[in-house]
Amino acid sequence: MVINAEEFKVERRDGEKAGTIHHLLSARQMHDKGRLFARITLDAGAKVALHKHHMDFEVFYILAGTGLVVDNNIEKQVNAGDVIFTDDGESHSIENIGGNILEYLAMVLYV
Amino acid sequence: MVINAEEFKVERRDGEKAGTIHHLLSARQMHDKGRLFARITLDAGAKVALHKHHMDFEVFYILAGTGLVVDNNIEKQVNAGDVIFTDDGESHSIENIGGNILEYLAMVLYV
Repeated sequence: MVINAEEFKVERRDGEKAGTIHHLLSARQMHDKGRLFARITLDAGAKVALHKHHMDFEVFYILAGTGLVVDNNIEKQVNAGDVIFTDDGESHSIENIGGNILEYLAMVLYV
Repeated sequence: MVINAEEFKVERRDGEKAGTIHHLLSARQMHDKGRLFARITLDAGAKVALHKHHMDFEVFYILAGTGLVVDNNIEKQVNAGDVIFTDDGESHSIENIGGNILEYLAMVLYV
């Protein structure tokens, strides 16, 4: 099944996580192996606050923009093509520190 | 863990699938929930031939270029931002029909 970019329902988020989320696959399509496969954008200055993963792991693939990731207490700048892998029991945050939109794919799979 | 784009080992492929493959996560990092999470490029004219998935499903996310996908016998052109979801028991192929490199993420998870 081909799903064109414009067919995804875009959900606007406000507040700290200001930006958008496009769910690319449902949990059911993922055979309930995960709970998220989405394209996320963060407006300039917006962030997803530090949080710890329990019984799942998350992968980000940066599509565009400039972010600051804190991953297990280590700060690193990220750009297009970078991957952030946060394993079960680990914590991370991501903040848009660039002037443009930060855009990434996020996937959460159960361990 | 942040993995910068340039840290990935790039593997060159020749023949029908001419292009590159960058493994973004190992099967072990994926807790053996899947067997592939990679960034793939196909040179102009190159293709991944029609094949059927058994006991797993595959997701493509098109990053750049123009492809022709055959998915369950339906032909569709794909571009950046499009998603191809090929479920267990389904078949697909992808061919670079543009003048530039076709670039996409591919992930195979077990059902």
